[in-house]
Amino acid sequence: MARTGRRRGESGTREAILDAARACFAERGFSTTSVRSIAAAAGVDPALVHHYFGTKGELFAAAMELPLDPGAAVPALLEPGIDGLGERLVRFFLGVWDEPAARQRVQAVLRSALTEEAAAALLRDFVTTQVLGRVAAALGTPDGELRASLVGSQLVGLGLLRYLVRVEPLASADEDTVVAAVAPTIQRYLTGDMHQPG
Amino acid sequence: MARTGRRRGESGTREAILDAARACFAERGFSTTSVRSIAAAAGVDPALVHHYFGTKGELFAAAMELPLDPGAAVPALLEPGIDGLGERLVRFFLGVWDEPAARQRVQAVLRSALTEEAAAALLRDFVTTQVLGRVAAALGTPDGELRASLVGSQLVGLGLLRYLVRVEPLASADEDTVVAAVAPTIQRYLTGDMHQPG
Repeated sequence: MARTGRRRGESGTREAILDAARACFAERGFSTTSVRSIAAAAGVDPALVHHYFGTKGELFAAAMELPLDPGAAVPALLEPGIDGLGERLVRFFLGVWDEPAARQRVQAVLRSALTEEAAAALLRDFVTTQVLGRVAAALGTPDGELRASLVGSQLVGLGLLRYLVRVEPLASADEDTVVAAVAPTIQRYLTGDMHQPG
Repeated sequence: MARTGRRRGESGTREAILDAARACFAERGFSTTSVRSIAAAAGVDPALVHHYFGTKGELFAAAMELPLDPGAAVPALLEPGIDGLGERLVRFFLGVWDEPAARQRVQAVLRSALTEEAAAALLRDFVTTQVLGRVAAALGTPDGELRASLVGSQLVGLGLLRYLVRVEPLASADEDTVVAAVAPTIQRYLTGDMHQPG
């Protein structure tokens, strides 16, 4: 927080922007909050927000203390194409969750989403537009959004059981075992036949 | 609670048993807590606990206000055999989550598990011994426990995204669409080749 009667230093300005971002995102969601409105709430120029934090997605990740901006990570994963995307997504996802600090933050975000509807709405909005929407666009099929949300359901459930509730033997299985089991699921959700009966 | 100096009525006795069950399960977990120890803590005969609540699993479900005892539901789902089990599990699971009261309770249990390690340990113990262990035993293969925990990961993630965070279009998709998408995943985790590369 800025001390009264003194100019804020860089770290004070950064904190003021992060506070404003948390308040604006919580109140209006991710999509309808602009960097301009966050800058106004923090009393700084929008260019300074971009200078310190980059894109709106990166600012959101910093405000929520996420280990990375998923909206920035997804394009890099999509770039080599849809072939093998299932395995790339699973390996990337396991790599992020393997970091204890990342796990703690994701746990806090999930807990909030299960506690307050506003937090659930914010998570839903961010994940839909920044992560699943990008995967759906890369698929380019009419059912791309459904496919992307099914991918999300398997990855979130895997993270929850392996890293947070820690159900065995899934919690201790080595990465290659998990990839061999789960990557074909993800690849089928992305590109497989989804209308065959169970 | 019993009023001092008066005999507890039936509802007072039931409440005393539920209170004792919650305390014992929270302190010692599901597996190592006996109905006898809960009865002792409530100051009643074990036969009365069985009379009011049935099995330990049913008492746990009542104490946690679960919509049903998953440990009792699983054998009925397994009974017709492994063929088609994927679809039966998904349809049963969707049916439970479709009830708003059930959803609220599962949300509360998950929130607790993400908040306190003791609650996570209790959930892990119950789900492993009562649900996943039964599925693994029915499969009868050395990797049955891993397969069962993968089934759990997909079902939990589906419930979380469809019913709690409510990510679209998964949240609004009709049951048959979800079954066509997810049942083959579950069936492959149960009986498919798990060593093929992604």
